Amino acid sequence: MTGLDAFRDPASIAVVGASGTPTKWGYWLARGALTGSARRTVHLVNARGGAVLGQETARSLRDLPDAPELVAFAVPGRALGAAVDEALALGVRGLLAITAGVDDERGLGARVRAAGARLIGPNCLGMYDADVELDLVWGRFEPGSLAVVSQSGQLGLELAGLAADAGLGISRFVSVGSQADVTAHEVLTDLADHEATKVVALYLESFGDGRALIAALTALHRAGKPVLLLTVGASDAGRQAARSHTGAMTTATDIVDAACEAAGAVRAETPARLIAAAQLLVRAPRPAGRRVVVVTDSGGQGALAVDLASRAGLLVEPLPQAARNAIATGLPPQAATANPVDLAGGGEQDLGTYARVVDLVAASGGADAVLLSGYFGSYGRDIPAQQDRETEVALELSRSAARHRLPVLVHSMARTTTTTDVLRAAGVPTYADIETAVGALGTAARLTELGPSVRADGAWADAGVVQGADPAGNQVGNQPGDRWGHRATAEPVAASPAAAPTGFGYLAARALLTGAGIPFPPALPVTDLAGLRRAAARLTAPYVLKADWLEHKSEHGGVAVGLADADALEAAYAEMSLRLGPGRYVVEQLDRRPHVVEMVVATRRDPSFGPVVVVGAGGTETELWRDSALTLAPCTHADALSLIERLRCAPLLHGWRGRPPADTGALADTVVRLSRLAAGQPGLLETELNPVRVAVDGLLAVDALITPAGPPPGHTP
Amino acid sequence: MTGLDAFRDPASIAVVGASGTPTKWGYWLARGALTGSARRTVHLVNARGGAVLGQETARSLRDLPDAPELVAFAVPGRALGAAVDEALALGVRGLLAITAGVDDERGLGARVRAAGARLIGPNCLGMYDADVELDLVWGRFEPGSLAVVSQSGQLGLELAGLAADAGLGISRFVSVGSQADVTAHEVLTDLADHEATKVVALYLESFGDGRALIAALTALHRAGKPVLLLTVGASDAGRQAARSHTGAMTTATDIVDAACEAAGAVRAETPARLIAAAQLLVRAPRPAGRRVVVVTDSGGQGALAVDLASRAGLLVEPLPQAARNAIATGLPPQAATANPVDLAGGGEQDLGTYARVVDLVAASGGADAVLLSGYFGSYGRDIPAQQDRETEVALELSRSAARHRLPVLVHSMARTTTTTDVLRAAGVPTYADIETAVGALGTAARLTELGPSVRADGAWADAGVVQGADPAGNQVGNQPGDRWGHRATAEPVAASPAAAPTGFGYLAARALLTGAGIPFPPALPVTDLAGLRRAAARLTAPYVLKADWLEHKSEHGGVAVGLADADALEAAYAEMSLRLGPGRYVVEQLDRRPHVVEMVVATRRDPSFGPVVVVGAGGTETELWRDSALTLAPCTHADALSLIERLRCAPLLHGWRGRPPADTGALADTVVRLSRLAAGQPGLLETELNPVRVAVDGLLAVDALITPAGPPPGHTP
Repeated sequence: MTGLDAFRDPASIAVVGASGTPTKWGYWLARGALTGSARRTVHLVNARGGAVLGQETARSLRDLPDAPELVAFAVPGRALGAAVDEALALGVRGLLAITAGVDDERGLGARVRAAGARLIGPNCLGMYDADVELDLVWGRFEPGSLAVVSQSGQLGLELAGLAADAGLGISRFVSVGSQADVTAHEVLTDLADHEATKVVALYLESFGDGRALIAALTALHRAGKPVLLLTVGASDAGRQAARSHTGAMTTATDIVDAACEAAGAVRAETPARLIAAAQLLVRAPRPAGRRVVVVTDSGGQGALAVDLASRAGLLVEPLPQAARNAIATGLPPQAATANPVDLAGGGEQDLGTYARVVDLVAASGGADAVLLSGYFGSYGRDIPAQQDRETEVALELSRSAARHRLPVLVHSMARTTTTTDVLRAAGVPTYADIETAVGALGTAARLTELGPSVRADGAWADAGVVQGADPAGNQVGNQPGDRWGHRATAEPVAASPAAAPTGFGYLAARALLTGAGIPFPPALPVTDLAGLRRAAARLTAPYVLKADWLEHKSEHGGVAVGLADADALEAAYAEMSLRLGPGRYVVEQLDRRPHVVEMVVATRRDPSFGPVVVVGAGGTETELWRDSALTLAPCTHADALSLIERLRCAPLLHGWRGRPPADTGALADTVVRLSRLAAGQPGLLETELNPVRVAVDGLLAVDALITPAGPPPGHTP
Repeated sequence: MTGLDAFRDPASIAVVGASGTPTKWGYWLARGALTGSARRTVHLVNARGGAVLGQETARSLRDLPDAPELVAFAVPGRALGAAVDEALALGVRGLLAITAGVDDERGLGARVRAAGARLIGPNCLGMYDADVELDLVWGRFEPGSLAVVSQSGQLGLELAGLAADAGLGISRFVSVGSQADVTAHEVLTDLADHEATKVVALYLESFGDGRALIAALTALHRAGKPVLLLTVGASDAGRQAARSHTGAMTTATDIVDAACEAAGAVRAETPARLIAAAQLLVRAPRPAGRRVVVVTDSGGQGALAVDLASRAGLLVEPLPQAARNAIATGLPPQAATANPVDLAGGGEQDLGTYARVVDLVAASGGADAVLLSGYFGSYGRDIPAQQDRETEVALELSRSAARHRLPVLVHSMARTTTTTDVLRAAGVPTYADIETAVGALGTAARLTELGPSVRADGAWADAGVVQGADPAGNQVGNQPGDRWGHRATAEPVAASPAAAPTGFGYLAARALLTGAGIPFPPALPVTDLAGLRRAAARLTAPYVLKADWLEHKSEHGGVAVGLADADALEAAYAEMSLRLGPGRYVVEQLDRRPHVVEMVVATRRDPSFGPVVVVGAGGTETELWRDSALTLAPCTHADALSLIERLRCAPLLHGWRGRPPADTGALADTVVRLSRLAAGQPGLLETELNPVRVAVDGLLAVDALITPAGPPPGHTP
């Protein structure tokens, strides 16, 4: 660990608050610490003295012959501060505080850092490292290759428990607690060269400096250690307050997903799903793609498996004919050979059939993964005389996976038997639930897809990007004193007389966006009838009239569309200015191009992850369909095209029902330009182009909203 | 069982093909049959004679003193026919055939029925009834209150195995196999008065006479025995061939869901989810609604639980303030009391806190269910001295559930411990996976909602409804010889000269639909210029011109909209008739009403379940958004309103973004009328109104498609 050496393999440790009472934390820490006493000096400290777990305690750290490298504290909240100060004074450089209910955790962290020491916690469940026999945690772990890093100690323990059920041991466990000093990012970075760790399970509920987190995740990705992230907030209503359409379209989870994508990590929905994927990643080769072939001994189980596989986004394609012919040989005539392959009693007649067919599928070139689902794993349990043969076949399955370098997964309706234990020991991930098996495969396939295209290698990491936020969640620009983006404003925004301005007016937004290369129809500002007439003369009818300062103009009667000539324009102006009052209005040429698809392109600045860019179905129904995709800003043209293709409405752009295709390239270009603008302007909280009218010959943005992070420049209340 | 008495509690049974070899079916049947020998005479038959499992066998059924009531066959496929015929000749009235690979299963079933006997199977895994010690099945079951009926024997066994893991025993297990005689419907009907059965797990992959199935499910619903249905085909591409928009919008699973809704049953997505729900239904009271309150000892686990609960459609509402105050008493100050309730260490300090808080939540009036998630269940495992106290608290949780008549569920991160066993035995459903717990609660809440509103009590069961299909899948009308709906056609449809008609032309469809009370704009047919001019004079401009015979007119250039006057109409006619050729065209008045929402209303006739009615987002983007809901036809006005409310686009109808609300009542009326038309006309395969333009003052259908089940009446090729 960078600066975290004291936690790696300390030569001496002490447990302050050691206890012989099993209901107390001091008992668990002491018991765990002593398991490493062959490797290091272990001191137990108890203010009352006496023996704990058969070892004499010291009454104070001061009574020890030397300062231990690492001290773990299990003392009451009110006592922690003094205990830490005493340790720091003695020169202790590694501190681990279980204690909850500590006042001024940040102050504590600052004192530790000022002393040149590091602190994990407080309010955590401790840490464990199998390789170095460092056990300062609640519960008991088996050594293995899964690292668990968790902001919630108990969720971390739940992950470890589910891992144990899946036969997976733990390489390192760190409950980071309040992160008063050491952050999850640091713990993750430190895992990149932790040899025992093959896969990382991570639970976070806040993200601090999100771009630093991405850097840590990227380091793990590059080290070949996939990270599976669990988080909460999918139902978070906290974003409802956003003013833009986009705010209602994006959730905290969408942004976390974009961050994961950038870093080559994958989010899991639940602890059980996370561990199911971890089992596959620890045991098996990664699938090269999404094609799964199901081998089964039951029509019903096979049909269910392919249903669930399709729903999980896997590809269920028929096997090549040559493989089908080879598989059919030796199977009963009613066997199915396409996908699923149904042995139709062939497995029951000869257990070797399972291995033979799985190997043919694996060799066929038609599968990125083989999923055996059904009775296999039950033979030895139901008929003990068949155990030896079933074990042999299980080992053959494992050899097939190794030979063809693809994952073979087993869903056994027996759940856990001798044979499933054999399979797991031989590197075949084994599941009691078909949905979990299929989900694990989907997650692994996703990691393969992210492999070569991790955004961290790409545009968003460019120098121009502003770091997202400081640990306290405040916006930090790369231009101190320029938090409101003053320099970016192309023209000052006049105060609107008719409504309190809450952002940039339309024309000011247009100017900024036009400067960024985003096309709008010709338009002119007007503040009186004479100006209106001049505008009508300089622009081509039909016209659109807009109240410059109003947001969501359609609902508020602040836009009149399709004004055929100057008379209609004047009439609309008379009506609108009477209703809304005097102020700056805009006359714009109407976009009359046929076959237009209305889209939205927008950016937001997330407190943790910084600027993101969103593209989606636009127009007045944006919030109804919530069809959007987002990525970190800035993004490349290829990123933008990939976002667009993820949209449900993408077919509209490609020539829906006989219409000519719209200019998707121009849309992607606008996504890139807006993403660059947002990334380069830390003072922009939100930008939104809606609608962006995309036609065969390019696009025009016809409404725009810009929200600065603070009051707009030039604002006169 | 109606006519299935021989399977209920036979006084004598025989196993033909009994064997002493554990790899053979004859062994399992014989072994199981003998477990009931205290209750009934059990004969074993083996052609080679000798002893099996310590009992002498007969060489043939003929050698038995009397004909057994029930005979189970484990003989090769080619031998089954003769063996069954011999049994029938001897007067056997109940037959169970495991055998697979039987030729002419239907002929076998017919012979059995002709003899006045009944046959379960062939190609099944047998049956089991705990109450009467009837065990003729693979595997070993524990007695309990879950019935399993399965079209796939192995999926049935998987369900039973998962049930065993959840501590649930089996009341009756029937693998119906090929259903050559006895159908799943009959087996289900027979369960309605099977006392030991509290909940039914059902796996079906085909539905035969779907309305008969609904009747069977309804009987179980009325008997207070919820049915959880598992099926396959969610990824079914089989409906792609449908001609209508609606075909692409509806899946086989949508129709199964509508059938379940009609019958008060609920579909489960996977075996594990089904059993999770069964555990709740067997053990606990049903929740009165969707409000769940989470009680936890971990912030992370609490946040995850409410996230997943929201996503599962449960309501996570803050507790009433009085309850919050009561809960806060005795908890640490950092405890959360709204929802989730986080004990924040309070449980650890005093285990009784769990029971006290859960009881306060249950008593609060603010919860329909309480979900305790986290560490509880681990205390006794981690600290054996705490086991007794944890057991006491577990029993208190059970008493809370009983006292307040609501389900208390426990998600224990310990998975399975002494305490979780205690909880289950005391009627508290207990889960190792939070997602599964939440899903079970969602399913139970759904059953509560279906309770009073089961469609089987309502309109679709009216006399006018046509039965869906015979067992072979053929359409069966209630008017023999009238399968094409001749009588319903208001006017004969002229053959179109320009394209081969594949359904009704627009005008013919309009006539039929207008007769059913569905409003269209005024329109007139024209076949030449003189007719066009007459039509222009009689109708009000602007006009729409349509090619009567074309489907999906927009894509095929068969519609011209917004023709401002007679000249524009003539020009459009000249262009269109030049391009598409002579034929019947239609001049229609343009619907110019403002604030129109375009919807689709349609019907389809499902081969199993008969007519269904669909409502959804309409217009040219119907297939893009696939926003639709369906129910069995005919439906009531209330059913129709409920369908509309389920749509994602429902807010468009209710006055989207400041627009006036559209006439949802008129839309519901059209849904009802179309559903009645479809239900009364067995010759209609599909009807579709798209778009239906719904405005503030009612609706107008402006395109219609009707597909007869065969060639259209009056069709001249």
